[in-house]
Amino acid sequence: MTTDPLVIFTPSGKRGRVPRGTPVLAAARQLGVDLDSVCGGRGICSRCQITPGVGQFPKHGLTVAPDSLSDWNAVEERYKSIRGLIDGRRLGCQAKIEGDVVIDVPPESQVHKQVIRKRAEVRDITLAPAIRKVLVDVAEPDMHDPSGDFERLCDALAEQWDIPRPEAALPVLGELQPALRKGKWQVTCILHSDHRDRPPTLLSVTPGFDEDPLYGLAVDLGSTTIAAHLCNLDTGEVVASSGLMNPQIRFGEDLMSRVSYAMMNPGGAAEMTAAVREGLGQLVTEIAAEAGIGTDRIRDAVFVANPVMHHLLLGIDPVELGQAPFALATSGALSLAARDLDLPLLPDTPLYILPCIAGHVGADAAAVALSEAPQESEDLVLIVDVGTNAELLLGDRTEVLACSSPTGPAFEGAQISAGQRAAPGAIERVEIDPDTGTPRFRVIGSDLWSDADGFDTSVLASGITGICGSGIIEAIAEMRRAGLVDAGGLIGSAEQTGCDRIITEGRTHAYVLHDGRADGGPLITVTQGDVRAIQLAKSALYAGARLLMDRRGVDHVDRVVLAGAFGAHISPRHALILGMIPDCPEEKVTSAGNAAGTGARIALLNTAARSEIEALVTRIRKIETAIEPKFQAHFVAANHIPHAEDGFEGLRASVPLPEPRFNQRDEAEGKTRRRRRRGAAGAPEGAG
Amino acid sequence: MTTDPLVIFTPSGKRGRVPRGTPVLAAARQLGVDLDSVCGGRGICSRCQITPGVGQFPKHGLTVAPDSLSDWNAVEERYKSIRGLIDGRRLGCQAKIEGDVVIDVPPESQVHKQVIRKRAEVRDITLAPAIRKVLVDVAEPDMHDPSGDFERLCDALAEQWDIPRPEAALPVLGELQPALRKGKWQVTCILHSDHRDRPPTLLSVTPGFDEDPLYGLAVDLGSTTIAAHLCNLDTGEVVASSGLMNPQIRFGEDLMSRVSYAMMNPGGAAEMTAAVREGLGQLVTEIAAEAGIGTDRIRDAVFVANPVMHHLLLGIDPVELGQAPFALATSGALSLAARDLDLPLLPDTPLYILPCIAGHVGADAAAVALSEAPQESEDLVLIVDVGTNAELLLGDRTEVLACSSPTGPAFEGAQISAGQRAAPGAIERVEIDPDTGTPRFRVIGSDLWSDADGFDTSVLASGITGICGSGIIEAIAEMRRAGLVDAGGLIGSAEQTGCDRIITEGRTHAYVLHDGRADGGPLITVTQGDVRAIQLAKSALYAGARLLMDRRGVDHVDRVVLAGAFGAHISPRHALILGMIPDCPEEKVTSAGNAAGTGARIALLNTAARSEIEALVTRIRKIETAIEPKFQAHFVAANHIPHAEDGFEGLRASVPLPEPRFNQRDEAEGKTRRRRRRGAAGAPEGAG
Repeated sequence: MTTDPLVIFTPSGKRGRVPRGTPVLAAARQLGVDLDSVCGGRGICSRCQITPGVGQFPKHGLTVAPDSLSDWNAVEERYKSIRGLIDGRRLGCQAKIEGDVVIDVPPESQVHKQVIRKRAEVRDITLAPAIRKVLVDVAEPDMHDPSGDFERLCDALAEQWDIPRPEAALPVLGELQPALRKGKWQVTCILHSDHRDRPPTLLSVTPGFDEDPLYGLAVDLGSTTIAAHLCNLDTGEVVASSGLMNPQIRFGEDLMSRVSYAMMNPGGAAEMTAAVREGLGQLVTEIAAEAGIGTDRIRDAVFVANPVMHHLLLGIDPVELGQAPFALATSGALSLAARDLDLPLLPDTPLYILPCIAGHVGADAAAVALSEAPQESEDLVLIVDVGTNAELLLGDRTEVLACSSPTGPAFEGAQISAGQRAAPGAIERVEIDPDTGTPRFRVIGSDLWSDADGFDTSVLASGITGICGSGIIEAIAEMRRAGLVDAGGLIGSAEQTGCDRIITEGRTHAYVLHDGRADGGPLITVTQGDVRAIQLAKSALYAGARLLMDRRGVDHVDRVVLAGAFGAHISPRHALILGMIPDCPEEKVTSAGNAAGTGARIALLNTAARSEIEALVTRIRKIETAIEPKFQAHFVAANHIPHAEDGFEGLRASVPLPEPRFNQRDEAEGKTRRRRRRGAAGAPEGAG
Repeated sequence: MTTDPLVIFTPSGKRGRVPRGTPVLAAARQLGVDLDSVCGGRGICSRCQITPGVGQFPKHGLTVAPDSLSDWNAVEERYKSIRGLIDGRRLGCQAKIEGDVVIDVPPESQVHKQVIRKRAEVRDITLAPAIRKVLVDVAEPDMHDPSGDFERLCDALAEQWDIPRPEAALPVLGELQPALRKGKWQVTCILHSDHRDRPPTLLSVTPGFDEDPLYGLAVDLGSTTIAAHLCNLDTGEVVASSGLMNPQIRFGEDLMSRVSYAMMNPGGAAEMTAAVREGLGQLVTEIAAEAGIGTDRIRDAVFVANPVMHHLLLGIDPVELGQAPFALATSGALSLAARDLDLPLLPDTPLYILPCIAGHVGADAAAVALSEAPQESEDLVLIVDVGTNAELLLGDRTEVLACSSPTGPAFEGAQISAGQRAAPGAIERVEIDPDTGTPRFRVIGSDLWSDADGFDTSVLASGITGICGSGIIEAIAEMRRAGLVDAGGLIGSAEQTGCDRIITEGRTHAYVLHDGRADGGPLITVTQGDVRAIQLAKSALYAGARLLMDRRGVDHVDRVVLAGAFGAHISPRHALILGMIPDCPEEKVTSAGNAAGTGARIALLNTAARSEIEALVTRIRKIETAIEPKFQAHFVAANHIPHAEDGFEGLRASVPLPEPRFNQRDEAEGKTRRRRRRGAAGAPEGAG
């Protein structure tokens, strides 16, 4: 009796002996190697491609003979001649093991392949979507043993794929009989099976083998912008990204004004629900067109949103979110269908909505947590999703805490005299020479600093039209560093500062960042009011962070992650000078980009991540800033730049900050004026 | 230490000691006594009414003192003064046990009460519907421990009612917050939880206590008639019944002609689906109006139908059911929502469709099995659901077999020269004097026999217009008994029979049942063609029964149950004379009425019955008559009246049958003519 051949799979290293003549795919299954197949070994889908090694493998103590795999059979030859195969590749379902062999499974042949994320500090995503496509051969009906076609399909799924009996909606049952007969009893099934312990759903049955990929949609529904990523569910790849202004803006710029609209106008909530669903519909259509696919190929979707948008999307009146105690209608994750939200997808397309964390900390914050995984962090991380309402997460392996802080819209350029959205023409970066008080800046749409040759030409098209959120933060931080603004936030006069770019506006001063009036452009200044607006916003943000730190019993954090599209553009140094975030080494302040969108994508591509975030949100300690007595004290102390009490020694060691004091009387007055106003006039506290 | 009082509940006999001061409801729960409550002990719903006994209970060895229950408290007094209470009754949630007591739980206070069925031989139904109504107090939101209103409602359901976390559709989540606040955190929840192992569904949340009962609908969707029963889900009582002609009749009278319509006309199946759903919608509206309730109080529905109607209802093209191998799209039970069938109920109202048994043996036959429970029969029972297509079940505790037999429409009066539907004016009962050959008959709409005084007046309004199905069966059986028809089915001439009511029609003879021509009415005869048509139908029925008996290895059955509305009108004796059913003592032939409708009602009122029938249909042995070689032989042998081979000795012992032979030559010819034609010309075999 000869020994069975030894087969070693790489990169897994799994090995074992299998009877001569065993197909590679069968050997892989036997040994628990992750090798994909959609057609179940029929040589149609080519998902089981492998690369056999030949020659010496000293590491494995093995010499692989050229005939260790069977010759190409007709099926494999046919596949190669029609569809092509990369040199050296074989179809794992056709090639049989005839001798000792080392077989490499390339990444794209693994079911649970890794979707590589660009940032080093976060985990890659393991591909394990809710949607699965399989080819099955169904037994023909037999009058001697009558059973339904659907029941025989279920038997085939169980036998050929070990899939438990699925449920099927009526339209699928209606298409079943023609599909089976047209496909000569061979059909492609698309099944949905998420993280919940329940039977899978059969979403469609089509005749023969359906080779086209399926797609999923990850949507971050923001107050201002709706962002969507279309992902190939076979590869995890983002094939198209698209954004849209939230059409609800016509009902109010910020969340509180939308809640007010719902309160004041009967049917207002329904109107806003219709608007956002219509916008989503448009986005779905656009993104499918961009990717060149039909919307019927999109078979799964995940949504994240802040609580107000979450409720409006679901058709729930958000009125309770506008008043204490800020009760969500539901905080749990939701599994819905496209039909429920009137989306232009196939009506039974599953939708998954991430859970909310609390009344002010929504599914978008949950998605940030999923992306940044504070609960797995070795060091203590503060994650700040900066927007009109900032959500903060503080935690490590021990515990994660969350709160929201009503920063208001100043960080987004609103309530700033020369403020504007981040669009071409907006000043986004600022540097001020501490000796002369002379600024230089960069404008969105140009790569050049304003003192570089060719700058004027480069901004001809856009002009220089205003300052965006990141620009105003840098401008004020630089003014502070240059001694033009004191710790109390007061802009000194030209005399006090010796800077001729300071002009007088009534009883206060303003700093001229750019004077375009000679060319018919605007005079762009940073006014005392602008500084006060940013102080309010940054104090709220910092106070929220401090509240979490208090609860955790710490007075510093190891690192800070800035999330949100806006967070990606904030310079860590300037955020520190301004005292937006707790003192922390500059290199420990990183940007996570649109972490909420990434979290949505993770939940789309990996169903285990859905269980993970559902479990995590229940474990996160929620802090409601609106009822924390210490919030007010933290807020007042954070009004100073960078801070009245916290030393920011780390920052000061690398960035010297001068300490002028421009006017005692004026400062006292300033303190009165900056008494906490949370949210807009008349709007309840705590949301926004 | 004094002994705790002893409490004995009747009729259950459950007993135990409970601490003094325990409310009767709490004591019942502790001792496992079935005592209802919807409001959870708040003295609102009065579902926990009990009757305390006072005095000597020698059987229990107990003397009950008048003060064995606490005095009436304010809640109980208030309830009695406003809503009234039957004398002697107390509210179990308010009355506290203060001494040894015997407490009677009246039937209407039991959750799982028995719904009494009229027939002695069948089980009563234990009330255990899928719909449940409970009152809960929900915790108010707490900013210190934020959670969604829905999550707190779920906690309340778990704590107060031990109900696992339900799922809720978006409209329910949308109505949740206003309902909780309007009801001051007390709401009535309607939940659906059927026999499947999955979370319950929250169907609605309304402020405060909703005292109005909920209803369920049991629908038997037949080819000709749609019959619906509206049941009170608290009592099991049928509060309204309504029927409607199936609007699909315009596409074809019988099932095969509807399948043909779907085959020949693109979109024909969808047209018929729309028609039947529209008809159902009308029925739903009518039955609710008849009961004086809103359709929104109907929160559950169960449907049974034959396979073709089943598919058309679901929107599945029935074309495969019109040709071998008669494959159902699905045979399993289905859980749907009203929305799926476009019914004018609340969109999320659950619908349950019973499983089909085989391609010709539908959910209606499954419902008959549920009602008649052959699998629990001690003796061997043959259940025949007589219709255009007859379904047969044969079985006992050992095994149940099923088949269908294409009887054609003759039993329903179609293909009969003077045939008509069972409607006023139709002859439904016939007797022929064996000596004189003179008939007397009864007509639908009159209680009198035709030879009684006042008969003519009683039928003035309707006239005497034709013969219905039961009438033609009795007429031919009586003709056979009177020696006017021989065993081969040939009508003798007036000379051969000595009966002057026999007339000649070409080469054959006909029997004049009624001659109304003098008054402008019709001449109603039983022709040779009529006898042949009934022979075909009864031979098919008998052959099906024989096939089942062969498989079971028996040559007689212990009893026969005739099901179907038509079955209820067949006279057992005449069915036996005709040889429709196997020989059997006349008193062992009973009618089950609309057993399919009853089965639907059972599945509506008791979810365990759903599991039961789903399990049973997989165990039933299905016999496909179309491919059984012996069917043809059985069919030919059954052509004789009552039978060529089977002796019918039991019948003959009580009903002497003369044995004339009218014409050798003609009989041979008849044999040729009665060669098996299954279904209508051009239509495939096996269905109808």
